Amino acid sequence: MSFNPVMVQAWRGPAVESEHRGALAVVDADGALVLGLGDIERAIFPRSAVKALQALPLVASGAAERFALSDAELAQACASHGGEPAHVATTAGLLTKLGLEAEVLECGAHWPRGEAQIAAMGARGETPTALHNNCSGKHAGFVCLGCVLAGEADRRQFLRGYVEPEHPVMREVTAALAAATATDLSRAPVGIDGCSIPTYAIPLRQLALGFARLGTGQGLSTDHAQAAQRLRRAVAAQPFHVAGTNRLDTVLMQALGERLFCKVGAEGVYCAALPERGWGLAIKMDDGNTARAVEVVLAAVVQAALPLNDADQALLQRHSELSLRNWNQRLVGRLAATPALRQALGPLARG
Amino acid sequence: MSFNPVMVQAWRGPAVESEHRGALAVVDADGALVLGLGDIERAIFPRSAVKALQALPLVASGAAERFALSDAELAQACASHGGEPAHVATTAGLLTKLGLEAEVLECGAHWPRGEAQIAAMGARGETPTALHNNCSGKHAGFVCLGCVLAGEADRRQFLRGYVEPEHPVMREVTAALAAATATDLSRAPVGIDGCSIPTYAIPLRQLALGFARLGTGQGLSTDHAQAAQRLRRAVAAQPFHVAGTNRLDTVLMQALGERLFCKVGAEGVYCAALPERGWGLAIKMDDGNTARAVEVVLAAVVQAALPLNDADQALLQRHSELSLRNWNQRLVGRLAATPALRQALGPLARG
Repeated sequence: MSFNPVMVQAWRGPAVESEHRGALAVVDADGALVLGLGDIERAIFPRSAVKALQALPLVASGAAERFALSDAELAQACASHGGEPAHVATTAGLLTKLGLEAEVLECGAHWPRGEAQIAAMGARGETPTALHNNCSGKHAGFVCLGCVLAGEADRRQFLRGYVEPEHPVMREVTAALAAATATDLSRAPVGIDGCSIPTYAIPLRQLALGFARLGTGQGLSTDHAQAAQRLRRAVAAQPFHVAGTNRLDTVLMQALGERLFCKVGAEGVYCAALPERGWGLAIKMDDGNTARAVEVVLAAVVQAALPLNDADQALLQRHSELSLRNWNQRLVGRLAATPALRQALGPLARG
Repeated sequence: MSFNPVMVQAWRGPAVESEHRGALAVVDADGALVLGLGDIERAIFPRSAVKALQALPLVASGAAERFALSDAELAQACASHGGEPAHVATTAGLLTKLGLEAEVLECGAHWPRGEAQIAAMGARGETPTALHNNCSGKHAGFVCLGCVLAGEADRRQFLRGYVEPEHPVMREVTAALAAATATDLSRAPVGIDGCSIPTYAIPLRQLALGFARLGTGQGLSTDHAQAAQRLRRAVAAQPFHVAGTNRLDTVLMQALGERLFCKVGAEGVYCAALPERGWGLAIKMDDGNTARAVEVVLAAVVQAALPLNDADQALLQRHSELSLRNWNQRLVGRLAATPALRQALGPLARG
């Protein structure tokens, strides 16, 4: 990834203070390259950006229907949520439907996002549980799938170790990811994700293909194509549950609904589907910066690729060029997609 | 900063997941270059890394002596502290000595570091004040200096706006920074820092010179040379107060005492003095990553540049090659100085 282009600059007053390099692939559902910037053939760990692809078996297996999963529960199966009370309640509610409890989740515990939330938990005398983990909804989805795969077996016993690559649950999940991205994951470098499931390194171009397929259904099995549509609709109906208050995924899908499916991943990854263009896209920042680098790039790409009304145009502009304020709320700088990136994205409007 | 070298890699399992580029300058007190990697002539915002240089007038003016500042108070004047109870109490104590209160501080308020601390504040029903701001000790130092500069004038009135470039306090502070780094700051790009004081862009090489001078006294005025020694001794005596629990500055200076003075800055900056070598150094990561990039580089540089006993060698090795664990405490990867950086640092041992 030696010479990927600078895509985002952080300005302080009159000078560039820091900069972020990355790669971007935009492809159609046939795998034809619409736009490639930087090294798009390099395999990267997609982390949480592919949760929607990993959730396909939850729907395709009939598990979502059997347990009457709500839109919020399905959105949370695709989510990196902020551990807000409504997120915690949604995961807990799904587990109750399954006759299970939080202890079955193997994602580990961490504090929710945001100091105000943490202080509020402190005030209530609470400490974090697996329900607060940003992946708890995805794990509840895995557990729900496991309840169907378990058949007549004891659920708790069957589920034990569901995060391991060879467990029947994870084999289904990995098979869905491999099929959507047309990648042989049995030969891919594999790491362990923050929530303990395997994460497979996949070329950026193939990740973009997976999201073109997620957005169009084209190239997926009939079951998975239907599942993809169901998941996208659930997220569009309940975008709070895919991320949370003031989070980019939530904000953008609240505005754009089914016109966009996007999902952030740790270490500077973003994947998205633009169904009306028939395109999928994948972004990876070299330095792994998520909050302020890859989000800016994603906003700039969506801004370039979709025809937008004035309000949506302004929303995307605010997220592709942000004002930076200090602790006294003084304007100190800005975070912006580079002119070179804007120019490179130009053809998307006409593409 | 187009082609600075990769200095740190984040590995996940068998593959590099992310990487960090940067520049490093090591110079002696005459300004002779000992080692330069990447673009060391580029002016960068040093942010909090130069707090010790900005604290020189606090001592040189006689303010520290007049108000009998303790080692902890002096260390905190050079600090980016974690807002732990002992930090808050130290700043509050200094203000009480001056007959002033927290409202005089113009740094703004933010929550302290770490979820456990925030939850504990929530449990006590507390919200953040300027005392919790990581810069509160530096600002209390500015205020203390202002109490001397005010002469017979009303202190509160004199101090108002002390963060502005043209205020007598900030003129003293800026003059000290300019003298130490041998840089004409009247012509330097200037931004506003997180705590609202000006931050001037200074070439990395000149920042390294400032720290060679801080560590040796050479090239400073007699007053500033004495002040530098006083500040370094105070920090070595009270390293907790320059950062806090488990923070790199604190951990390294707890181990190495006066053999090292180091200070992190926002946006991936580190400056340090190695008095026994007569060297100063400055590091800037292109992407502004502080926590996991510039800290690793600093540890690798110190490891290469100082003769160390086995315990200190092991400590520096742990901080220049860190294990990464997930929410279940499973080992998922490592964060490491690159072999190329290690090799480039080799000559420091013999230099």
